[in-house]
Amino acid sequence: MVKIAFGSFGDSFSVGSLKSYLAEFIATLLFVFAGVGSAIAYSKLTSDAALDPPGLVAVAVAHAFALFVGVSVAANISGGHLNPAVTFGLAVGGNITILTGIFYWIAQLLGSVVASFLLEFVTSESVPTHGLASSVGAIQGLVFEIIITFGLVYTVYATAADPKKGSLGIIAPIAIGFIVGANILAAGPFSGGSMNPARSFGPAVVSGNFADNWIYWVGPLVGGGLAGLIYGDIFIGSYSQVPASEDYA
Amino acid sequence: MVKIAFGSFGDSFSVGSLKSYLAEFIATLLFVFAGVGSAIAYSKLTSDAALDPPGLVAVAVAHAFALFVGVSVAANISGGHLNPAVTFGLAVGGNITILTGIFYWIAQLLGSVVASFLLEFVTSESVPTHGLASSVGAIQGLVFEIIITFGLVYTVYATAADPKKGSLGIIAPIAIGFIVGANILAAGPFSGGSMNPARSFGPAVVSGNFADNWIYWVGPLVGGGLAGLIYGDIFIGSYSQVPASEDYA
Amino acid sequence: MVKIAFGSFGDSFSVGSLKSYLAEFIATLLFVFAGVGSAIAYSKLTSDAALDPPGLVAVAVAHAFALFVGVSVAANISGGHLNPAVTFGLAVGGNITILTGIFYWIAQLLGSVVASFLLEFVTSESVPTHGLASSVGAIQGLVFEIIITFGLVYTVYATAADPKKGSLGIIAPIAIGFIVGANILAAGPFSGGSMNPARSFGPAVVSGNFADNWIYWVGPLVGGGLAGLIYGDIFIGSYSQVPASEDYA
Amino acid sequence: MVKIAFGSFGDSFSVGSLKSYLAEFIATLLFVFAGVGSAIAYSKLTSDAALDPPGLVAVAVAHAFALFVGVSVAANISGGHLNPAVTFGLAVGGNITILTGIFYWIAQLLGSVVASFLLEFVTSESVPTHGLASSVGAIQGLVFEIIITFGLVYTVYATAADPKKGSLGIIAPIAIGFIVGANILAAGPFSGGSMNPARSFGPAVVSGNFADNWIYWVGPLVGGGLAGLIYGDIFIGSYSQVPASEDYA
Repeated sequence: MVKIAFGSFGDSFSVGSLKSYLAEFIATLLFVFAGVGSAIAYSKLTSDAALDPPGLVAVAVAHAFALFVGVSVAANISGGHLNPAVTFGLAVGGNITILTGIFYWIAQLLGSVVASFLLEFVTSESVPTHGLASSVGAIQGLVFEIIITFGLVYTVYATAADPKKGSLGIIAPIAIGFIVGANILAAGPFSGGSMNPARSFGPAVVSGNFADNWIYWVGPLVGGGLAGLIYGDIFIGSYSQVPASEDYA
Repeated sequence: MVKIAFGSFGDSFSVGSLKSYLAEFIATLLFVFAGVGSAIAYSKLTSDAALDPPGLVAVAVAHAFALFVGVSVAANISGGHLNPAVTFGLAVGGNITILTGIFYWIAQLLGSVVASFLLEFVTSESVPTHGLASSVGAIQGLVFEIIITFGLVYTVYATAADPKKGSLGIIAPIAIGFIVGANILAAGPFSGGSMNPARSFGPAVVSGNFADNWIYWVGPLVGGGLAGLIYGDIFIGSYSQVPASEDYA
Repeated sequence: MVKIAFGSFGDSFSVGSLKSYLAEFIATLLFVFAGVGSAIAYSKLTSDAALDPPGLVAVAVAHAFALFVGVSVAANISGGHLNPAVTFGLAVGGNITILTGIFYWIAQLLGSVVASFLLEFVTSESVPTHGLASSVGAIQGLVFEIIITFGLVYTVYATAADPKKGSLGIIAPIAIGFIVGANILAAGPFSGGSMNPARSFGPAVVSGNFADNWIYWVGPLVGGGLAGLIYGDIFIGSYSQVPASEDYA
Repeated sequence: MVKIAFGSFGDSFSVGSLKSYLAEFIATLLFVFAGVGSAIAYSKLTSDAALDPPGLVAVAVAHAFALFVGVSVAANISGGHLNPAVTFGLAVGGNITILTGIFYWIAQLLGSVVASFLLEFVTSESVPTHGLASSVGAIQGLVFEIIITFGLVYTVYATAADPKKGSLGIIAPIAIGFIVGANILAAGPFSGGSMNPARSFGPAVVSGNFADNWIYWVGPLVGGGLAGLIYGDIFIGSYSQVPASEDYA
């Protein structure tokens, strides 16, 4: 059962909420900077060779480590979403209001755009965008992103948002980062393994290349929403509205 | 001393039990999707080259990270087995009834089959199955899988099922995932390093190739059962029947 | 608002403070030994080939693991800085006095110099120094180091120095090590990815090569100071002076 | 100040002590099996090529993950030493008696020998032994092993044996495993990066090749003893004798 709540402007502009947006902006910036930066580093080291297995390991590990840390540094302030699909998935389960969620999205997208511009400046390289491999159709890519984002947001629910998570919450940021690392090791050569509209959006803005970009909005939002519905309804059952900053409390 | 209990249909069809089966299904699906997906990704990136050390690292890290997360997301609901050998090893020690264990097996096998079908669909690649290297005899492969699955289920006992585990339980899912990663780095080029009948079963069903598949049933079940006997009898001594969902409490 | 405090000589020469300097010296030595050692190992294995992606992974993982451990072993004694930029960032937020911080710097620099001399002795190889890639300008390198050190010190604040960190403090050393690993995967082929004047200073002393060395002082100190200002003022708000040894309490 | 205690036969043959020896035997076996197995896997995949950086990463990660898990599974029973140098370092600090320590050594050495025989059987490959690279002199190799084992045992003290470790104890097994991974990334191409007489002894027995083997006794024992002296005397100061099984309590 969808439990979306719209929310009030007063809540969304409280001091605590403004700090949350800043925390999301900084954490997403740091995550995208290291993640996209690792892809640029691969191109630099190989003079733009096609991705090979060591490169895939480098990119997956960079995303895993950086997302783990990004979630950690924002956890106590904003809940550590760093990802519009996570925010959407949590909104579907009633863990954050629509209005506050919109500001989260803006902060996340801005963080990714700024990270991408900074990368272009410091590396003098073009910023690579997510895109489907030539052998992968749109439906295939979409389903790939739905499945892996479902896994990511399901992990956020089970380890962080679930009020009954217990001591699992201590290692939640590691789990959230590492499922993204594992999924990139599978999806990298096919859909790219985004799971995150913000992660894909920043490089698209900076490079001006929005080809396939819709895939990384629709797929992650569908996957994240499904995780919110399934985990929220079946495993949490009924839960009350909690402030975003308490997601990981 | 074996402490297997059959269990009652009432317990195995309670709401809590049904949620456990769903949790096992989803977590196993996510684990197999990333793990087998990483092997397909290697083939894609190398145009089906033979496995090399960077590929082995990629596959081992994907399994380690994905199993850690899979165990985490199911831990509070089903105990986070994701593996018929783990379920069997815990049944030998009296931690889960035979009847409930059978439903766990079904959920795990279904999760792996669905993951494998999804991978075939989204990648348009054939799904690789576990099999012995040509230099490895059946007995050698069997012993290899017995040893490494013993290590996995022994880890489950020591860090998660042991009532005296203390704060070790907090990092139990990481330990369980990482022993599988370490063991794949050793076993990958020989037995394949399955340690998990469900992990091997799904790809076998989708590819229709059951050659060597019995090895990945017999080896893991013998290894897991031995771990249950040794850890359960010697280090736990006497323990009472607990609901599956409390394995990681 | 900057909250720097000068401190008294009595505090800086207490038994507890002297133990802190020794703990910083040993932990920095161990970190630099493994980190720089991994770069030497790459040169040895490849007969001084240019860095490639597997080498970048090796170096990044060595730094991530070694810094995580170095922070852990010093955490309860000195707070586990191992890095003049971390000490400076914490001084900006008033978490350590200037005077004690100067002794921390000396201990960290000495640890790195000794580690570098030991590496030269045990490997008979020259010790590689940090330096900008030929395509990277000084401003670009400086900005790169500012951003990634900001990320590192921001992580120290959010997971370890923030009095409201809660259970996040348990995994703080892992987060601190892994953000360095992620950032090296991005910065390695451009600025080198130091984030730490001590890490860069030791090899410069032993090799007698101080070209670009100023970058690894200015960049990290600016980035670390900014993190102290932003996290300290906005997210901590007002905090009182605490002994350095309680940073991770 | 050395605080070695001899101990009594009654204590060393109590039921708890016998369980400790079994726990050390099993955990060391599992660690050596995965660690040495990863080196054999590299040889198998590359047809016995010389070690390259991806191979070094594979071997280092396997040791890091397997030691983390090995320490975890034995922590609550034997304290999780898995290494005569750790046992010796703890004996120097008075944390385990000489007599019990001798039985720990026997259990660890037996575990390594059995693991090596099993590897030979399941792989049909020769088991590789530790040895110095041709460019590395005996004194260099010895100093290398002293430094890195000092780091390992210092980590055991700071995160596990120190009564004031606090919540750091929760991640102690990860830190202990990962410092070994980091050190192998530095030492692998020079001294081999053993840090553990048992890890080197088993392969030497099975292959009948004891060349350089003394290095992996003297170096680790000197390094581990130094760590016990320094950490024990300076950072712990005065501590009372505790049963081995409470090292990680």
